[in-house]
Amino acid sequence: MRHQVVIIGAGPAGLMLGRLLEIAGVDAVILEQRSPEYVLGRIRAGVLEQGSVDLLRRVGAGGRMDAEGHLHAGASFEFDGDALRIDFAELVGRQVMVYGQTEVTRDLMALRQAPTIYGAEDVALHDFGGAAPYVTYRKDGVEQRIDCDFIAGCDGFHGVSRASVPAGAITEFQRVYPFGWLGVLVDQPPAADELVYAHHARGFALCSQRSPSRSRYYVQVGADEKLADWSDDRFWDELRARLSPKVAAAVQTGAAIEKSIAPLRSFVAEPLRFGRLFLAGDAAHIVPPTGAKGLNLAMSDVEMLGDALIEALVERSDAGIDAYSSRVLRRIWKAERFSWWMTNLLHVFPDGGDFGRRIQRAEFDYLAGSRAAQQSLAENYTGAF
Amino acid sequence: MRHQVVIIGAGPAGLMLGRLLEIAGVDAVILEQRSPEYVLGRIRAGVLEQGSVDLLRRVGAGGRMDAEGHLHAGASFEFDGDALRIDFAELVGRQVMVYGQTEVTRDLMALRQAPTIYGAEDVALHDFGGAAPYVTYRKDGVEQRIDCDFIAGCDGFHGVSRASVPAGAITEFQRVYPFGWLGVLVDQPPAADELVYAHHARGFALCSQRSPSRSRYYVQVGADEKLADWSDDRFWDELRARLSPKVAAAVQTGAAIEKSIAPLRSFVAEPLRFGRLFLAGDAAHIVPPTGAKGLNLAMSDVEMLGDALIEALVERSDAGIDAYSSRVLRRIWKAERFSWWMTNLLHVFPDGGDFGRRIQRAEFDYLAGSRAAQQSLAENYTGAF
Repeated sequence: MRHQVVIIGAGPAGLMLGRLLEIAGVDAVILEQRSPEYVLGRIRAGVLEQGSVDLLRRVGAGGRMDAEGHLHAGASFEFDGDALRIDFAELVGRQVMVYGQTEVTRDLMALRQAPTIYGAEDVALHDFGGAAPYVTYRKDGVEQRIDCDFIAGCDGFHGVSRASVPAGAITEFQRVYPFGWLGVLVDQPPAADELVYAHHARGFALCSQRSPSRSRYYVQVGADEKLADWSDDRFWDELRARLSPKVAAAVQTGAAIEKSIAPLRSFVAEPLRFGRLFLAGDAAHIVPPTGAKGLNLAMSDVEMLGDALIEALVERSDAGIDAYSSRVLRRIWKAERFSWWMTNLLHVFPDGGDFGRRIQRAEFDYLAGSRAAQQSLAENYTGAF
Repeated sequence: MRHQVVIIGAGPAGLMLGRLLEIAGVDAVILEQRSPEYVLGRIRAGVLEQGSVDLLRRVGAGGRMDAEGHLHAGASFEFDGDALRIDFAELVGRQVMVYGQTEVTRDLMALRQAPTIYGAEDVALHDFGGAAPYVTYRKDGVEQRIDCDFIAGCDGFHGVSRASVPAGAITEFQRVYPFGWLGVLVDQPPAADELVYAHHARGFALCSQRSPSRSRYYVQVGADEKLADWSDDRFWDELRARLSPKVAAAVQTGAAIEKSIAPLRSFVAEPLRFGRLFLAGDAAHIVPPTGAKGLNLAMSDVEMLGDALIEALVERSDAGIDAYSSRVLRRIWKAERFSWWMTNLLHVFPDGGDFGRRIQRAEFDYLAGSRAAQQSLAENYTGAF
């Protein structure tokens, strides 16, 4: 078998890259270890920056998003019950689109004509340091080999792509936060029209929405918390205790249709090109979810990578692939910085001490009183950097 | 002896408070443990915010500052040799005045008509929780007592005023940084027209100026460094190694006329009123010097305290003294946050790791590309908050 590009991973990064290549007439196959149902079962982020919205529209995947998604002109920030609305539209002339990552994945999946091989086991990357790379895998018990020009590693933090790079060739930068997010999905109208990010002495809380009838809530929990210890009742009590009275009163509870704990991590690998292998999305970096940057970074990664591969394969110029790593890393580090900043502002740090909490409060008070600080938050949140 | 107000400490905070009270016809005495020569021998900060400049002019202490001080419309920031100028004047319409704290002290000292008692030993504060406080001290071997209405503690971080407050009545917030600043004063023209703040992999460096012929330079050193290990030559070599080639080449070296190592600390005490005792300046808070906020905060503290005491003693209203602590703490925490932020951005932290340094670089790159971020820095640095 031969394809110009082998994309590892059929999440939103791999699917978007596949779509960009498909439109340009580049022959690309996607290999995915899991089933389509498994991929669609993952509950992830739901906030799209303008750049992601534009990209989805450009590739013809914006129809349902525009019909069912919700534009948010701002978001609320609370600190020990005091509320502050940041008006993105007024401050920087941009909005965000609330539309679940699962739906983005579904829409991109539905568009795809070129082959996606699900259930590809034991995927291995070969010879990407040379001129003739290939990928092997097993499907239904049969060994397969695909020869190609380029490999795109879009297979997430735990995927095989980054793990295939020789240890000496890659540098990894990481911070693991001493807490996680306990998330609950519920079929109830959201507590507020916009997202509510809350710092409280008891810990962080977030009210978000997937649709007018489906809400997603989170509370910060200790790194060693067990899901079994969190009944629905305990979750709702804890959530309400961390919100301002007005928002707490508007939370409509119900049976959790999904409940999970996710750890928080900042991670960046450098570089992101190794000969004919490129890393993109969560394979290249992880952001804590506080800034809603994970999916958006994946989209901007593959937009740059798509352009670079098309340049190399169609226009026969290496300029794009040569510049990919340094270009994409500039944007990644800006998003990493913002996500780290929002995480630091909004969470209770076990070792932060009393001085640390006062600094967080001073940051909130400064934000409340400074248009420049609000513009800075708004341009970062909406991805205008 | 009786005075309406006893001010403890004849540094710039105590002297400015004394001047404000003197103008309003309030009878205040200043007690200072040291001699005038000792007080004037301390080399401190040299950057005045607009608010401090306005206050000095208002009390008649602005003449020499306006003649000999230098207005700076901006400052330079470097990161591993890359330079970025922040234009305060263009960004927020404000400048800073470079004029040494020693000169401010000298000017305020020269203006003072009311008594200052230098060499006051064993100062002790009594009964400030009640209606009739008094202060005792020993001068030339003779015990003295001053009865008063109010006591103003302007005697710095190690002074007796804060130490006199019962432990249970005060909360202290503190962060001690794992490094210090080695400073050198030299009679040579400055390397640049404006201040240069430099982050370098070897550590922080700062080029500042006291006059067209006198410069003050600093390098970050380990918390346990000994002054004896730093010859002038070693200092100049280290300073130049941390600056961009252009600035390094402009450094004119010479014999150090003063050389010292200062630890870096963030500290805030709460509250700042205890009955008839008030704390102001370094007795109330310490900032790391990175944001040039120490002297400016002291000035804004005593401006508020002066108004409050005049209100109480002349207008017979307690509104000002009742509000003093919470009002002044709001400004203090904003300055603490900014000083902490600038310290975090510009220094190498022994335990910050590779991720931490990349975040610092990302912060510098974001600052270089965002007008909102530059405005935020400029409004904080010039004290527009």
